[in-house]
Amino acid sequence: MAKQQSGNDDDKGITVKKEDDMAEWYGQVVTKSEIADYSPVRGCMIIRPLGYAVWEKIQQEFNKVLKNKGVKNAYFPLFIPESFFRKEAEHAEGFAPEVAWIENKDEGGERLAVRPTSETIMYDSYSRWIRSWRDLPVLINQWANVCRWETSDCKIFLRSREFLWQEGHNVFETEDECEKDVWNWINEYKKLAESLLAVPMIVGKKTEKEKFAGAVYTTTIEGFMPDGKSLQCGTSHHLGQGFAKSFSISFLGKDEKMHTPWQDSWGFSTRLIGAMIMMHGDNKGLVLPPKVAQNRIVIVPILFKDTKKKVLDACHSLLKELKEHDPVLDDREEYSAGWKFSEWELKGVPLRIELGPKDLEKKQAVLVRRDTGDKIVIKLPDVRKRAKEVLDSIQEDLLHKAKRFMDESIVRVTDWDAFMSATGLSAKKLVLAPFCGEEECEDWIKDKTKGVTARAIKDDEKMDKGARCIHCGKDARFWVYFARAY
Amino acid sequence: MAKQQSGNDDDKGITVKKEDDMAEWYGQVVTKSEIADYSPVRGCMIIRPLGYAVWEKIQQEFNKVLKNKGVKNAYFPLFIPESFFRKEAEHAEGFAPEVAWIENKDEGGERLAVRPTSETIMYDSYSRWIRSWRDLPVLINQWANVCRWETSDCKIFLRSREFLWQEGHNVFETEDECEKDVWNWINEYKKLAESLLAVPMIVGKKTEKEKFAGAVYTTTIEGFMPDGKSLQCGTSHHLGQGFAKSFSISFLGKDEKMHTPWQDSWGFSTRLIGAMIMMHGDNKGLVLPPKVAQNRIVIVPILFKDTKKKVLDACHSLLKELKEHDPVLDDREEYSAGWKFSEWELKGVPLRIELGPKDLEKKQAVLVRRDTGDKIVIKLPDVRKRAKEVLDSIQEDLLHKAKRFMDESIVRVTDWDAFMSATGLSAKKLVLAPFCGEEECEDWIKDKTKGVTARAIKDDEKMDKGARCIHCGKDARFWVYFARAY
Repeated sequence: MAKQQSGNDDDKGITVKKEDDMAEWYGQVVTKSEIADYSPVRGCMIIRPLGYAVWEKIQQEFNKVLKNKGVKNAYFPLFIPESFFRKEAEHAEGFAPEVAWIENKDEGGERLAVRPTSETIMYDSYSRWIRSWRDLPVLINQWANVCRWETSDCKIFLRSREFLWQEGHNVFETEDECEKDVWNWINEYKKLAESLLAVPMIVGKKTEKEKFAGAVYTTTIEGFMPDGKSLQCGTSHHLGQGFAKSFSISFLGKDEKMHTPWQDSWGFSTRLIGAMIMMHGDNKGLVLPPKVAQNRIVIVPILFKDTKKKVLDACHSLLKELKEHDPVLDDREEYSAGWKFSEWELKGVPLRIELGPKDLEKKQAVLVRRDTGDKIVIKLPDVRKRAKEVLDSIQEDLLHKAKRFMDESIVRVTDWDAFMSATGLSAKKLVLAPFCGEEECEDWIKDKTKGVTARAIKDDEKMDKGARCIHCGKDARFWVYFARAY
Repeated sequence: MAKQQSGNDDDKGITVKKEDDMAEWYGQVVTKSEIADYSPVRGCMIIRPLGYAVWEKIQQEFNKVLKNKGVKNAYFPLFIPESFFRKEAEHAEGFAPEVAWIENKDEGGERLAVRPTSETIMYDSYSRWIRSWRDLPVLINQWANVCRWETSDCKIFLRSREFLWQEGHNVFETEDECEKDVWNWINEYKKLAESLLAVPMIVGKKTEKEKFAGAVYTTTIEGFMPDGKSLQCGTSHHLGQGFAKSFSISFLGKDEKMHTPWQDSWGFSTRLIGAMIMMHGDNKGLVLPPKVAQNRIVIVPILFKDTKKKVLDACHSLLKELKEHDPVLDDREEYSAGWKFSEWELKGVPLRIELGPKDLEKKQAVLVRRDTGDKIVIKLPDVRKRAKEVLDSIQEDLLHKAKRFMDESIVRVTDWDAFMSATGLSAKKLVLAPFCGEEECEDWIKDKTKGVTARAIKDDEKMDKGARCIHCGKDARFWVYFARAY
C-alpha cells in the first residue's frame, strides 16, 4: 500500500473495468468512493467514515449475537511480554515472523510485542481468574486493533499491518461444550456475512497445514471472489487444552479434583469489508448492501429556477418520511443532477430517489436501484412502503447473485490433469477434490500449481471408500476446496 | 501498576476505609469488584466486562451526540512516522518524553511511534482531502487506544500507558465556527459526565502552562475527588491555524482565493470510569450510577426447601417484567443470601430486590438501594413502576450528593497565607484565587505548595480592577481554580 493521491474532481470515475484488472479496479473503488485511503505508513490503512460505518453496523449486529450467547466484551492490553509468546511453542513459531516489537522495555527489561492476537495475554489473566467450576464457562470477546508486520504486498482491508477485529476467547469444563462452541461461532460468522454483507461463505475445517498456530483444529469461512480467488473471512479454533496447560489454567471440579479446561478462540476482521467491496462493486464503483450502508437512500432533486422551492419542499418531506433509512438529500446547486448520480453511484448508496417538477405534478418519484440500475416509478403516497420493499429486494438479490456465482464456480475433479486445468489462473474456479490430508502433499500441490492451497474441508460429505488423493494417489480422507487465495 | 493477585474468596471484601486511605481503597475496589485488573505489563490495564460495559454505555450515548452534530466516526493508523511529530514544534516537544516507538521501521527506514494522540497522522490526510470550501467543515471522530509511556506511578483508569478514548478533529473555514465548536464539545463533555456518570464538572480554560502542546488554548472539564484532588476528565483544544500551516492544509474559498482553515481537537478517555469509581464508591465497594450499569437490578431469592419452587417462579416473572433494566437473578444455591448481598454490593449493582416466601405471601418484595442502603417494601404489582422510580432517584441523588460535595469544597482566597492553608494536603479544598496567568508564577506556586497546579480559569466571572495575583502580587487577570491533581 504505497502512498497515493486521493481522488479529486479530475479523476472521479473508475477508469478500469473490474473484469479487466480487478486489483487496479479494487484500489480505485476503495479510494475514489472514499470508503478508505492509503496511509503514509506502508501497510496501514485509513478507514474513512463510509467504511467505518460498515464496521459499526457489523459490530452492532454481532454484539447482539454475543449478548444472546452470554459473551461479554472486555479489553486487554496492546502490549504482550515476549515470554508469554514463548509459552505455547507452536503458537510462538507461527507468529514470530510477523510480530512488531516496541523499543520501550517492560520493568524487568523484557521485550514487548504489539499484539498480533491476544491468546497469550488473555490466558495469563484467565489463569488467575479461574479457580473453580463456578467460574466456568468464561465467555469473553474483545473488539481491538491488531498488528501483523506483513512483508508481502498489502491491500486495504484485505492484508494490512494493522487491522480491526473481534476476538472471542471462551473456556469450558468439557471438550464437548468447547467443540459445540467452535462450530457455533463459525456458523454465526457465515450467517453474519451472508445476511448483512450478502457475501456467501463456505464453512469447513482447515487442513493441518493451514490451521491456527497452537490449535487442535481450525474452522473457517471462505468467500470466493469474482477474480477467482478465495478469501478467508473468519476463523474459529478448537484450542484443546494446549494453551491451558502452557498457562497453568486449571479449576476445581464438582468432584473436588483439579482439572484442565478446554478453550476456543474465534475472530473476524475488517477484511469482511474488502470481501463486500470485491463481491458487489461494479464499474461505476461501490455497491453497498442496504443493511450496512450508512445512508440507504439518496434523494436527488431535479432543480429548475421556477419550481425549485416546490421540489425542495417535497424532498424535505421525503427526508422525514424515509428517516428510518438515514436518507441524504443532495441539494447542492453547483453540481448537475447527472454529476450527482455518478457521485452517489461511486459511493454505493443502494437506492436513489429522483424528484423533479414533472414528477411532482404527477405525484410520483423515480426510484433507481444501485445494483441493477432499474428505474421504478412510484406514487408519492407509496414511497415509504415501496422504498422498504426495494431495499429488501436489493439486499436479497445481492446475496442470490453472489450465491449463484459461487455455486457456478465450484467444480469437482478427481484426476490431476483436470485439477491442474481447473486451478489455472484463467479458470477462476473453486475446485473440489479428494485429498489425503498430508502436509507434504499439500506443499507439492502448492508448488506445482504455483499457489493453489487447501481452503476448507467439505465436512458434510463422506469420502467414498477407495477414493484416491488428487495428487499423491494415496487413500483420500475427505473432499477439499482448493483455490488460489488472498 | 504492579502485578497483583486477583481477589479470591478469602479476601472478598474491601479491607480499608475510603476515608482512611483512598489510594489503597481504590485499588481494592477496582480489582475486587472485577471492574478492571492489573496487567502483567507494568502500566497497562485490563478492562474487565463490568468496566467495559460502562465504556460501551458512554460510547453509545456520545455516538448519539456526535451523530446529532454531524460528526462521523473513522479510524486512522496506530503508527505515526517520526517526521510527522516534528512538523509542529510545540506539539513535538510536548509529547516527545512519553512516546513509545516500535523497532520495525517504515519503508524508508523511518522510526514509527505508537500514537499518543492523532493530530499529526490525521492532518496529513486532511491536507490531501481538503481542497475547497465545499470540503468543509471536516467533522471526524475516532474511538481508539492510545499509548503514553508514563514514568510516574500508574493507576488503573487514572494514569496508564495505554488507555481508550475518543478524539474528535474538526476543520472549519472560520475561526468563529471553530471556537464555537471548541466550547460546544467541552460543554457536551460536562453534560455527559454529569448526566451519565453523575460526576459534576467545572468547565474552564487551562492556563498557558497547562494547555495542550500546539494549541492556542485548551478548555477542560475538571472533577474534584473525595480525597481532595482534581481530576482532568476531558479537554477540547482550539488549535488555531498552527497545525494547518505545518501540514499544508489549505482550501480554495468562495472568493476563489486560497485560505488556511481553523482546527480543533477534543477528547475524553476511560479515565472517566476512574472518576466515577472514586466519586461514588464506598466501603462496601463500587456504586454504579444506573445509566452506566450493565445490570441495574439484581434479584436475590430467599430460598428454603419447601418454598423454593414458588419463590424462584416469582423471581423469573420479575426478571421478565424488569427486562428493560437488564436484571440478573442470583439463584445459586451454594451461597447464602447474605453472601450474595455483599458480592453484588461490591460490584455496585444499583438496586437489589429481595424476595422470600413471606414476601410472596404478602405479595410484596423488598427493594434495597445500593447508594443509601435504604429498604423499600413494595407491592409486587407495582414493581415495574417503583423500580424505575427508584433507579431514577439513585441517578439523581448520586449527582446531587456529588455536586454538594464539590460546592462545599470550593473556597475563595485572596491572600497567600490563606492560599497555603487551603491548598494544604489535609484541607482537601478546590481553591479559587486571583492569578496573573504567568507561567513562571505558576511554577513558583507549584514549587512552594509541593504540587498545587492551576486546574481551570473561571470564565464566567470577571476579575475586579486592581485585584492582585495570589502569589506575585502583580495585576490579576482572572480567577483560577487551584488544586493538587491526578
